[in-house]
Amino acid sequence: MPKKVLIIGGVACGGKVAARLRRLDPEAEITVLEKGDFLSYAGCGLPFYVQGIVKEYRDLMSTPIGVVRDAPFFRKVKNIEVLTRHMAVQINRASQTVAAVDLSSGKEKVFHYDDLVLATGASPIRPKLPGIEMNRVYTLWTMDDALALRAALDSGKIRKAVIVGGGLVGLEVVEALHSRNVEVSVVEALDRPLPALFDPEFSGRIRKVLERKGVSFFGGERVLEILGSDCEVTGVRTDARELPCDMVLMAIGVRPNTTLAQEAGLEIGPLGGIAVNPEMRTSDPHIYAGGDCVETFHRLTGKAVRQPMGSTANRHGRVIADAIAGKKAEFKGVLGTAILRLFEFTAGRTGLGVEAAREAGFDPISVSIMNSDKPHFMPGSAPVILQLVADRASGRILGGQAFGAGEVSKRLDTLVAAITGNMTIDDLADADLAYAPPYSTALDPLTHAANTLRNKSNGLLKTYTPLEVQEKVRNGEDFILLDVRSPEETQRDGRLPFGNITYIPLGALWEKAASLPKDREIIAFCKISVRGWDALSILRSQGIENVALLETGVAGWPFQLDA
Amino acid sequence: MPKKVLIIGGVACGGKVAARLRRLDPEAEITVLEKGDFLSYAGCGLPFYVQGIVKEYRDLMSTPIGVVRDAPFFRKVKNIEVLTRHMAVQINRASQTVAAVDLSSGKEKVFHYDDLVLATGASPIRPKLPGIEMNRVYTLWTMDDALALRAALDSGKIRKAVIVGGGLVGLEVVEALHSRNVEVSVVEALDRPLPALFDPEFSGRIRKVLERKGVSFFGGERVLEILGSDCEVTGVRTDARELPCDMVLMAIGVRPNTTLAQEAGLEIGPLGGIAVNPEMRTSDPHIYAGGDCVETFHRLTGKAVRQPMGSTANRHGRVIADAIAGKKAEFKGVLGTAILRLFEFTAGRTGLGVEAAREAGFDPISVSIMNSDKPHFMPGSAPVILQLVADRASGRILGGQAFGAGEVSKRLDTLVAAITGNMTIDDLADADLAYAPPYSTALDPLTHAANTLRNKSNGLLKTYTPLEVQEKVRNGEDFILLDVRSPEETQRDGRLPFGNITYIPLGALWEKAASLPKDREIIAFCKISVRGWDALSILRSQGIENVALLETGVAGWPFQLDA
Repeated sequence: MPKKVLIIGGVACGGKVAARLRRLDPEAEITVLEKGDFLSYAGCGLPFYVQGIVKEYRDLMSTPIGVVRDAPFFRKVKNIEVLTRHMAVQINRASQTVAAVDLSSGKEKVFHYDDLVLATGASPIRPKLPGIEMNRVYTLWTMDDALALRAALDSGKIRKAVIVGGGLVGLEVVEALHSRNVEVSVVEALDRPLPALFDPEFSGRIRKVLERKGVSFFGGERVLEILGSDCEVTGVRTDARELPCDMVLMAIGVRPNTTLAQEAGLEIGPLGGIAVNPEMRTSDPHIYAGGDCVETFHRLTGKAVRQPMGSTANRHGRVIADAIAGKKAEFKGVLGTAILRLFEFTAGRTGLGVEAAREAGFDPISVSIMNSDKPHFMPGSAPVILQLVADRASGRILGGQAFGAGEVSKRLDTLVAAITGNMTIDDLADADLAYAPPYSTALDPLTHAANTLRNKSNGLLKTYTPLEVQEKVRNGEDFILLDVRSPEETQRDGRLPFGNITYIPLGALWEKAASLPKDREIIAFCKISVRGWDALSILRSQGIENVALLETGVAGWPFQLDA
Repeated sequence: MPKKVLIIGGVACGGKVAARLRRLDPEAEITVLEKGDFLSYAGCGLPFYVQGIVKEYRDLMSTPIGVVRDAPFFRKVKNIEVLTRHMAVQINRASQTVAAVDLSSGKEKVFHYDDLVLATGASPIRPKLPGIEMNRVYTLWTMDDALALRAALDSGKIRKAVIVGGGLVGLEVVEALHSRNVEVSVVEALDRPLPALFDPEFSGRIRKVLERKGVSFFGGERVLEILGSDCEVTGVRTDARELPCDMVLMAIGVRPNTTLAQEAGLEIGPLGGIAVNPEMRTSDPHIYAGGDCVETFHRLTGKAVRQPMGSTANRHGRVIADAIAGKKAEFKGVLGTAILRLFEFTAGRTGLGVEAAREAGFDPISVSIMNSDKPHFMPGSAPVILQLVADRASGRILGGQAFGAGEVSKRLDTLVAAITGNMTIDDLADADLAYAPPYSTALDPLTHAANTLRNKSNGLLKTYTPLEVQEKVRNGEDFILLDVRSPEETQRDGRLPFGNITYIPLGALWEKAASLPKDREIIAFCKISVRGWDALSILRSQGIENVALLETGVAGWPFQLDA
């Protein structure tokens, strides 16, 4: 007898389970209950629909050849029964049934299952703030959200917006609003953008992008109230200021939709998502769950994490379908990989940051470098900043961050593979990456980063991060900051914001090095700290051994510069 | 006493040895002898200078901040003595000296060394053809070559060009000439472009690009004579035709410059390059060699290979400098990675192809897929074709090819890392690659390729390559080719060039599948073979089990289509 498989939720994970299962089991009776109107749409594409880059919302839920993935499509092409506007309201584990309400008719129906899949997704958090119920207080998580937000923008009445939350969703919408001539302010409870993803230095670089584009960023502020009159938003009051606006986007995070699972007595994990094993099975062996409603685990630490992303949901869906079909299948965990386009810049991260690596019991060593993504003589060449984190003893690569106007995503995915393959710093430095001038420098920035970390790990090079240098200055430590750029560059590109900097252009350093004191630490830098590295050789040749490099130089400095 | 290090050759490897060694050893006396005028230039950038994308030749040999890397630069900034126009003529290993001629004065000088580095590069092959000595018969390997070729193009007298050799250099110049309104023909002794790098199918796709751009490709033809009068080229005669032209580019390969090494009695490897151990030491422990003049080895097979590329030369240089400075250093081999831009397309490859994998003792399994590089709703979305090769038993990834107008280089470098990290198909499929719509699809094309190979390896899917299908048709095998595209697509995009194709659009297949015979193999396909995969499920549900998929569908078909 064909297996009855019931799937609750038809967006990312649910759709993937259904499609994959059909390929594995031509006989199974597959039914999908989706409470909304829309199926299998690209949730991550919503900001681009709001921006207008994606013209029609139907584009987000059609196949590459333009066929809309609606219920008739699933029936006709995949022999999958999809019921939209059907809200599951109760799971009865004993009878293996699900009760659902047909939202069009109001009638309740009961569905039997041999295997049940929960792909109920997540919901954006709407805190109980005064004024939260007013018009034009949006979230952006579902297609309905996107339709509402775009309609508001199309109305031409939105001039000023406040985005509450400086995380991934908040920043994805920044560009959408900015490109539609909306004045944008971002309010974030922590002190910097994307605090959950990036370290303070990469966050600082992202903040500079926002400021350069005229987007106001208010970090470390809590929103107390949404202001308005006649149910129309007029502003946001934080603990530090009032920000007038015509709309508010609440983007402080999402919560997994676990009510059904909880009421059915399924186990919930420490982070509030449905708990599943590596086969994506819940505490009931006939019930699987995947996508935004579950918590998953980190590949390197094994610890529970939440990663509500379409890519993760699709991977979950494949494992679930395989498990239901009786194939060997196991989810292998996530690396917390994330990537964001912000105007002409890209920011990305994967794996463990320095702090997380330390907490996980590693002894992390890290370095950041700045380089061109391709040779400077090629048109469109632009900088990238890469940070690598590795375990000191084993050399194993644990994580990294990347930022810049140059090609970042390639280096990020290569790094993801390096971590997944348990590669060491040496392995990465020795990888035969593809070289031709349209695509990379002869030694790719990633190779350069790995070589620099190798130098650091072998004791050939000592470096400080911008934060560490800032800290040393604040603590009044006695050291020399040596800027080896030319006077023209110093003039044009700005100076580090510290009073006591020694300026000696690299070309003059052989002559002048002797005049530098031998008993104080010298931290050298230039624009990106490649000449800074040369400076260290020169200083060493003069018997000055207590030398170090400021990572990423003036161009990568994440904080304010002096003019 | 400071170590005396003498380096012969100052372009890629030589320059890297000098710079790295200076950082490791501030005291060493480093001297570079370069027979030409130009130092540390980006040889791989020469085609872009010829094309005019790189405006000034000096850009190819300047630092990112615009300082030309000439002899004064090396002296002032790096304390390295560089002598241009100094041609080394003899190595005396007993006395550890090198005799060199100063080409400006004609005088011979003798240089002592503790360690000698041969970075003598390679030279393009100029076969002894009748007419080869005429004007406007170019090669493109050195800066001098590029200056000559660009001057000829700037003169406006070049209307038609013949490129002899359809390898990497030849094809890199195609675009340069084409963009300057030169009518280009390529003559290649083997039957297809880039025969040493790509399999016939990827070569076929590249050939289609050439033809679409109006570049004539004559495969399987040998050039017999260069025609001309008064020392001016007027054409090329092959064994099949005469091609009139105003210039010829000889691009049939390069030969490592080994004369000095050979005369000094150093060991030469099986491929004609200087033999070195993993520390890049020659058969004389005081003499190292690296870059285009040596032969190196394949990371996966250990076999000797030549890989005359700037990236390899730089990696060699780092190992040599480390070895000279007494650090632990070992070159880890290459993967034969190569990447080429051809108009708006990119083609790349790494690792072992199917044939090479078999020769190396693996039992290869492979698949090619076609997918968008990012979601179809994002502007600029474009297809990529990826091929993966793995070892059947272990699942270890061995190699791959990539081609398309979409983002290819990211997938290629990720694959390089996957091979370097000894990843399996499963590891790659499960890698948490970065997803956001500007950068990839929810499951990256590489994930999709790995999943497809996983399906194939697990027996869930049988596929044929275009060549295999072509072969089956030629052999008169009895099977059904099932095209499940819509009639509009079939009309618009062309048909496979075979008489007997069954056309049933996917949406009608559930109804019509029963009419198909159950006793003959059915090979399904669509535009890219995603719907083809759905078709297999439908056929199986009707009890038709002998089914397979044509890889990459009609859009990826590498040969001529029917209109």
